[in-house]
Amino acid sequence: MNIMNLFEYATLISNKVDYYIFNTIKGRPAELYEASLHYLKAGGKRLRPLISVLSCRIAGGGEDVAIPGAAAVEVLHTFTLVHDDIIDKDDFRRGVPTVHRLWGIDMAILAGDTLHAYAYKCLLGAIELGIPLERVLKSVEYLTKATITIAEGQALDMLLPLRQNINPEDYIEMVNKKTAALFAASSAIGATLAGAKEETMKKLQEIMIYAGIAFQIRDDILGLLGDEKVLGKPVYSDLREGKMTILVIYAYNKASDDEKKKMRLILGNRAASIEELREVADIIKRLGAIEYADSLADSYAEKAVSMLRTIESVDSEALDMLKDVVEFMVKRNY
Amino acid sequence: MNIMNLFEYATLISNKVDYYIFNTIKGRPAELYEASLHYLKAGGKRLRPLISVLSCRIAGGGEDVAIPGAAAVEVLHTFTLVHDDIIDKDDFRRGVPTVHRLWGIDMAILAGDTLHAYAYKCLLGAIELGIPLERVLKSVEYLTKATITIAEGQALDMLLPLRQNINPEDYIEMVNKKTAALFAASSAIGATLAGAKEETMKKLQEIMIYAGIAFQIRDDILGLLGDEKVLGKPVYSDLREGKMTILVIYAYNKASDDEKKKMRLILGNRAASIEELREVADIIKRLGAIEYADSLADSYAEKAVSMLRTIESVDSEALDMLKDVVEFMVKRNY
Repeated sequence: MNIMNLFEYATLISNKVDYYIFNTIKGRPAELYEASLHYLKAGGKRLRPLISVLSCRIAGGGEDVAIPGAAAVEVLHTFTLVHDDIIDKDDFRRGVPTVHRLWGIDMAILAGDTLHAYAYKCLLGAIELGIPLERVLKSVEYLTKATITIAEGQALDMLLPLRQNINPEDYIEMVNKKTAALFAASSAIGATLAGAKEETMKKLQEIMIYAGIAFQIRDDILGLLGDEKVLGKPVYSDLREGKMTILVIYAYNKASDDEKKKMRLILGNRAASIEELREVADIIKRLGAIEYADSLADSYAEKAVSMLRTIESVDSEALDMLKDVVEFMVKRNY
Repeated sequence: MNIMNLFEYATLISNKVDYYIFNTIKGRPAELYEASLHYLKAGGKRLRPLISVLSCRIAGGGEDVAIPGAAAVEVLHTFTLVHDDIIDKDDFRRGVPTVHRLWGIDMAILAGDTLHAYAYKCLLGAIELGIPLERVLKSVEYLTKATITIAEGQALDMLLPLRQNINPEDYIEMVNKKTAALFAASSAIGATLAGAKEETMKKLQEIMIYAGIAFQIRDDILGLLGDEKVLGKPVYSDLREGKMTILVIYAYNKASDDEKKKMRLILGNRAASIEELREVADIIKRLGAIEYADSLADSYAEKAVSMLRTIESVDSEALDMLKDVVEFMVKRNY
């Protein structure tokens, strides 16, 4: 299975999932639904649904069995984006203005809440497909657990201070909860709907935790190195928002007192000029943070890939595609 | 069953539900969980859990069978309070500062999201009690439907403008969704966990919709007439926030052009003085809005009570208590 075929399959699944989502999320008032569907209409890779579908196939299920779960994780992901963007005061996402910029913070809070509830509604559609109730209920449990974990990860992210040296382990815990947990749940839900064995489920989740952590570290790096067009949002926005990326944590721990002072002054300072932000970016690069982050991402990617080799599946095509997805998630894209 | 016995029973159920909730909602970071549990620790009548438990008993179930559902509806209700308070810019609730005043808007958004997810976690605890999976799943559906409906109601509330004469039917639709839907779901979830017949379920929900609408109308009136101690928040806060209560809608439709102008100027104006707010309150009273709202509430209360008489139950004690609960919900408390 080469990348071209994966891309075609991803498009197919994306279309199926979107059809399901847009048929499920309907109602009034119109403003609430427009705000709720804004990011879903603006694009997105539908990476999590693809993971659900492939995990379902690996566990022996047909791809349609996974669609309610695949839709659920995408809708849940979108809910977290809407609320995160309020918290991070982001102005752009997927190349369009953020929900709270267009409809205001109040409506954005409600749109996020609406999507959160619709994630469950999407998943419950599995009942109509005749999927055994215990599998549906188990999937509801995975979705719930992941949502709690994501909220905890977001809170940890918000609370990580730049006042002292931060342990990279604290960062990994935060990323594990904030980002990797939903990848793991995406896989678990897809596999559960197919009635996967406990052992396969455990392995798939562990793989996705590793891949998710590597994915977030690469995203941190891209945030520092990428240009506006690739990011869909202004450069240095992570620095301006004072986000505790692995780059900032590593660099701050290595920095001289003068550099620490500068970092504290500029990071999270919304009045900082682009020159000042670049200066801090240069400090971070000079202290070797990118090399460190890259090797950290490599180590998690390696764990994911080697554990993937131990998975057995009757559907070898699906397994090959999942390998490609993991490669895509953990690869250097900068 | 007299009111004293109902009060004792309500306390018993409240304790059971709180025990269940505080044992379920645990985790870290501490700040997130403190913010999430703030209102639950500050008090509250636990009216919705009581409705769940009584509905469960009416349908032939034991009271413990309802506890996961009862906890779920209370936690879901609390989530909506946390987010509503951000939207309404309320400073006090249950006599304590609101979550966003104490922890900031960002943490309050996350605390609401956390409670939203934990409502499901509470409900899923029913599996461990050995309740048939189809009942648990049906309850999950009720919870999800109610949550979507509440968000729609909130959005309608936010979008009702004071630019034109508003139809009282629009108000009823809004209140139906914003307030009554969760009372109906509380009843439906309790009855579902006991395996109620479809007919009983339908009736119980309809009763709770009527009672919920009457409850909200009385709450609107109390907001205009009540004093700070009873309300747990400043007087005239509904007027200051520009809330579209039935009183404002009725009065605005009856008002002269001068009075309309004054109302548009003062309602929702956070800079308005207490004298100006009182002036608008006086206009509302003078135009007969309270009498109108009272008779509207009476008519919904009457519908609820008369439908309640058609319910049959082996547990006549529970049915009597539910009648008392409905009486309590719809009575004049000002």
